[in-house]
Amino acid sequence: MKLAILIRHGESEANVKNLISEDTEKFPLTLKGRDQVKFTADQIRALKFDGIISSPVLRARQTAEIISEHIGIPYVIDSRIRESGLGDYNNRDISDVGNMTRSEMGMESWDSHIRRFMEAFNSYEGNYTMISHALPIRAAISGFLNFNEEESFGINIRNASMSVIDVEKRKVLSIGSFLVTPKIQMAFR
Amino acid sequence: MKLAILIRHGESEANVKNLISEDTEKFPLTLKGRDQVKFTADQIRALKFDGIISSPVLRARQTAEIISEHIGIPYVIDSRIRESGLGDYNNRDISDVGNMTRSEMGMESWDSHIRRFMEAFNSYEGNYTMISHALPIRAAISGFLNFNEEESFGINIRNASMSVIDVEKRKVLSIGSFLVTPKIQMAFR
Repeated sequence: MKLAILIRHGESEANVKNLISEDTEKFPLTLKGRDQVKFTADQIRALKFDGIISSPVLRARQTAEIISEHIGIPYVIDSRIRESGLGDYNNRDISDVGNMTRSEMGMESWDSHIRRFMEAFNSYEGNYTMISHALPIRAAISGFLNFNEEESFGINIRNASMSVIDVEKRKVLSIGSFLVTPKIQMAFR
Repeated sequence: MKLAILIRHGESEANVKNLISEDTEKFPLTLKGRDQVKFTADQIRALKFDGIISSPVLRARQTAEIISEHIGIPYVIDSRIRESGLGDYNNRDISDVGNMTRSEMGMESWDSHIRRFMEAFNSYEGNYTMISHALPIRAAISGFLNFNEEESFGINIRNASMSVIDVEKRKVLSIGSFLVTPKIQMAFR
């Protein structure tokens, strides 16, 4: 891959209910979430890219569908950019997650997120929009900044936000932005 | 400067009241804010640094005072790492701030934050803890990542969090962390 725009899915019913879930068929986008995604789709419309890659989880697929319709580019599903593995915490309230480390909680490790995202980057040629989830996107960014989970705690990936990575140059161009800036336009030229 | 730990002040009464303020003598730390700062002070106790530099704003000075007492290093005040210039929005509710750019709202520009922080970095030799505020810390980090305001929107600097910069190598080592990781310990050795 050359350039990647990592987009988090729009607001979903899991967000509204404060739940975390890795299930593939639950928690669709809310109406607000759909509007958030339309705004972001309009932003990237002028950029030239080669495809859209989505996590298999419903809220990501619905996001990919909206973006695909808006800009007229098909999408593919790739499970390597799926939601974080949540173990026993799957479908539970976010406040149940305590102060332990992921491995202590039986969740997918930080490094596993980075590994599968890097594999996905290496499997496509060109510029792509990738629709994924908050923690996997934070981990992917951290892979390029050499941050571990704790060192990236101040990175907050909001619904429908864009984080742009120049994969070829191994450089993070933006984190959690809602607008395409002149620098990003230049990178895609 | 060689290494900088940028620490945001602990929770202040302005945070609790959802106000933004650049006033020097208002809004002390809350009890919770004092506890947050003690936790962070304990974290950095084992690191070797040459001094503590604080913003002149009360909540930052109180943070510096607690850290200074905890680790036995004096502090200095430097207005170049002060709170953001807020213009007519000073002492107003954070929800009053709309969707306009800072310059449209008559606030201090993004680049001005980066400039004054860089001047501060260039004025001290060695390793320092610098106590400042959410937006100026985000701007200082962005100066090293070449992000403008929009491109750094996903950076969220929480109360009493630490962001570590290797100023000499022009490299961000962590963003908004609450723990000192092995990598940070190594950098300070």
